[in-house]
Parts: sequence; C-alpha cells; structure tokens
Amino acid sequence: MATRALNDTIKQISRPKSLTAIAVEYIREAIAKGDLGLGHPISESALASSLGISKTPVREALAQLKIEGLVIIFPQKGTFVFTMSEQEVVEICEFRYTLESAALKMAIQGSQQAFLNELKEIEIKMSAARREKRGDRYLDLDADFHALFFKYCGNQFMVEAYRMIVARVAAVRTHLAALPRHTEKSYNEHKKMTKSIEENRLDEALKILDEHISRTKESAARHIPRYSLL
Amino acid sequence: MATRALNDTIKQISRPKSLTAIAVEYIREAIAKGDLGLGHPISESALASSLGISKTPVREALAQLKIEGLVIIFPQKGTFVFTMSEQEVVEICEFRYTLESAALKMAIQGSQQAFLNELKEIEIKMSAARREKRGDRYLDLDADFHALFFKYCGNQFMVEAYRMIVARVAAVRTHLAALPRHTEKSYNEHKKMTKSIEENRLDEALKILDEHISRTKESAARHIPRYSLL
Repeated sequence: MATRALNDTIKQISRPKSLTAIAVEYIREAIAKGDLGLGHPISESALASSLGISKTPVREALAQLKIEGLVIIFPQKGTFVFTMSEQEVVEICEFRYTLESAALKMAIQGSQQAFLNELKEIEIKMSAARREKRGDRYLDLDADFHALFFKYCGNQFMVEAYRMIVARVAAVRTHLAALPRHTEKSYNEHKKMTKSIEENRLDEALKILDEHISRTKESAARHIPRYSLL
Repeated sequence: MATRALNDTIKQISRPKSLTAIAVEYIREAIAKGDLGLGHPISESALASSLGISKTPVREALAQLKIEGLVIIFPQKGTFVFTMSEQEVVEICEFRYTLESAALKMAIQGSQQAFLNELKEIEIKMSAARREKRGDRYLDLDADFHALFFKYCGNQFMVEAYRMIVARVAAVRTHLAALPRHTEKSYNEHKKMTKSIEENRLDEALKILDEHISRTKESAARHIPRYSLL
C-alpha cells in the first residue's frame, strides 16, 4: 500500500499534459467517433473555442494529426478530416489484413489461453452493447477486439505498424456502421472468429478475418465521401 | 526536349538540400555501410568536422535518425549507433517476413513481367559484384532486390511500413556479411527465389524467403554486438 500511495503522489506531481496533447486526443477522438466526419473541413477557431484554449496548440495538434494521416492540410484551402480514394481504401484494407493475420498467428503461438479469455470477454461485452443499442460502445469494443491481436503478438514492430493506421481504420468503421445490417454482419464474424480460435482452427479464423476486412473494403470503396467541395 | 530542359532549369533553381538533410543522409549511409558500427558511440564534433558544418545540423540530424531507430540517445551518456537485443532481432525479422512475403505476393499479382525483369537484372549485377569482389556494391544490390517487392506491390501503406525498418535491416546485413560463407548462402537463395518466381512457384519462393530471413535472424541473434561498455 505504501508503494501504491507513493506512486499516486508521483503521478500527482508529474507534469500535466500539454495543451497540444489534450487537443490531439480530443480531435483524434472526434474523428474516430465521426463527430468530425470524413472529408469535413476543420475550423481552428471552432476547436480552440470548444476546448477553451488558444489557436496555437490547436494548430500544433493538427500538424501532429497530419503525420498520423488523420487530417489533410491543403495550403490556401484549409484543413480537412482525412478521406480516402477507392484505391487507398483497397490499400489500407490489404495492409490491415497483412498485419492482422500475421499478428493473429503470432498471438495464437504465444499465451493462447490469456488471449482467448480476453477475446471472449470482449465478445460478451459486444453482445451487451448491441442489446443495449449503445453503438459508440460497440465500435470501441470492435477496435479493442482487433487490437488484442497486437497486444498478444509479442512483436513491437507489428504494434508500431498497426499504430500507423489504427485511428483511420476506426474512423472508417464508424462511418460504415451507419450502413444497414453492416454491424450485424460484422458482429457475427467476430463471434465466428472467436469460436475458430477457441477450437484451434486457425485457417478458418484467417479466412473469416479476410472476408471481414474484404467486406469493409467493398463497402468503404463505395460509401466513403470524397472532398466533393474542393 | 523543351520540357526536359525546363525541368532541368526548375531543378537548378529549386532550394538546395538543408545541412540537416545532408547530415542525415551521410550518417544514415555510414551506419548502413558499417563505417559507424552497431552499438558504437557517435561524436557530434567528429561528424561536424568531417562534414565541415556546425554541430547544430548534426544534432538535428541525429534527432531525426533517432525517430528512424538508427541511433539511440542516452541522456548523460551520449549518442550511439542502434543495436538490438536478441528479442528485437527476432521481432524485426518476423516483421520483415510479414511485410516482404505479403509484398512479394502483391508484386506477382501486379505487373509480373516488369517485376521479374528487374529481379533478373539485379541478380546479374549481384553475380558481377561477387566476381569483382565488390562487397559494398553487392550489399546495395541485395537491398535493391528486396526493395523491388515494394516497388511492385502497389500498396503505399506497405511501402511506408517497410521504410520504418529498411535502414536497420541494411546495417544488420552489412554486419553479417563479414561472417564466413554468409554472402554465398544468401546469394544462392536470391538466385533460387528469382527462379521460383519466374516459374510461377510462389509457395516455393515464400519458403526460400522464410529460410533466407530466418537464417539472418539466427546469425544476427548470435553475432550482433551489444552496448557492452554502458
């Protein structure tokens, strides 16, 4: 208990998050949740006033989010939430499958039981979120499910590569969740994947993962908004 | 010809490379070629005087190379060329195989003939470099051979992910090239891979690639120097 108390004290006196870091998290979350829709213009002043801060940290945050591919800055025209061409959707989905399928294989070779337990735990929560019609919560759990492959893959390079795309994948997922029956199909695939992993049928799990991501690819290629106003 | 001349003119009046960019390229190359050995200390003043520039751009270059994982900055102790623990060697090789095998599959599905022609062209140059005992040249061609998978994979996300590790992979390759018979084995594997690709035996090509990278993994895990002096 003494150590715990000491750690808490250290946490309290540690440097608070910078305004830029707060703005980065706020904007990243707003994009992932769809509050800032794909391809929408972003107003520095509106963000600054929502957050009660000056425009400088907002501008710094946007520069950082540009590196993550979440916003696009067009000189003279302004800053916009990212969106993707059909080709880019295909590429990000192929890349996602490359990383996720390899991470899933590695996770199964590692601490399989702990991995499986967490997958099942998330699946139960997903089911509850669906019952309670909590769409946002469901989407967070969907992201958590896929992130587990990386938590258990035991490879830091895989984790870093996934980090390059994960926020964009979440934003696309939010966007597609509005499509009729999209979430239902997606949920069923999650359940089937967990079952295949539990019963040691890796090839089947990879096949479902491939279909799962391919379906996203086709929907996204058709339904992602472009920068139509530019 | 008129367009060509215009392009040349534009190139001439474009902004020259910054001193930092020059220093980044110089140091990156020195690490890849082994002139700055794995785990070795780096002196800002020595680099500044070799390049005939001040220490500020050298320091900025080192900060950028830190992001690429090529140098490690220990506060109070100085800056060192990266090196890897046995675990990190295993992880980077697994990651490399994940990316390279997927890129090879994509490249074969794309413009197969152009890809194959370039592979064969590089193989001929590798053979010449071996005959002429030009070790540095051979290692450059080895890197070019693997980079071709990405040139032809048609996926920008794959290219970016490979860029995260490619300089470190080159430096490890240079280090291992000093081992007896390492290059001979490696060269034969390159030849076999090209042949399998030419004869449309993708599974065989992937198996050789796996062995090729695994052999590197085992040698590297045993032969990479640590920061023994820290």
